[in-house]
Amino acid sequence: MPFLERHLFICTNRRDPANPKGSCAAKGGEALKDRFKKELHDLGLKGRVRANAAGCLDQCEHGCSVVVYPEQVWYGKVTPDDVPEIITRHIIGGEIVERLLIPDQPHLRGKRRV
Amino acid sequence: MPFLERHLFICTNRRDPANPKGSCAAKGGEALKDRFKKELHDLGLKGRVRANAAGCLDQCEHGCSVVVYPEQVWYGKVTPDDVPEIITRHIIGGEIVERLLIPDQPHLRGKRRV
Repeated sequence: MPFLERHLFICTNRRDPANPKGSCAAKGGEALKDRFKKELHDLGLKGRVRANAAGCLDQCEHGCSVVVYPEQVWYGKVTPDDVPEIITRHIIGGEIVERLLIPDQPHLRGKRRV
Repeated sequence: MPFLERHLFICTNRRDPANPKGSCAAKGGEALKDRFKKELHDLGLKGRVRANAAGCLDQCEHGCSVVVYPEQVWYGKVTPDDVPEIITRHIIGGEIVERLLIPDQPHLRGKRRV
């Protein structure tokens, strides 16, 4: 089985539209996940990097939210238009995309690369 | 926001019952995810360890499948009865539960602890 160099999880959690918390699904989580999958496929990264849908990542106020492992980098308010930049700079280049970081990630303090 | 010491993703992917690949949902993925969430909550690990549902992890023949980050340990054919052992030995104790490992994980070769 392949060892994944990086594994992305994109929240696609869906709540009742009346729920005041909202949900990543209502903000476009499925389209975001599909865009990650397509871009990774088009770049030939299948087997080295994987994007997966995930249930609620508990970052609802920052949705659509994405977490990248093994380094546990959390991105928030991500749109499909941000996907090429995340893949080029972070997934391939190892550089944190600071403008999309969810604030207060102590394990990343002072780091620009992962 | 919390830094998660460990983050588990449990495949809950659902396919058409006629699909010969089967799916983790048909093998009890939802109940497995719920058991992980309950045990982690009961042990007071909320905020330090999180269990999430995930889409297809591409290990269908080994379902129900689970991956643990940051160390990327893949477990297969996991049942709710296996959850206490995974949490006690691996999540808390840092010891790989070898009997549940999916075979051929080169990054774990020779490792008993993570």
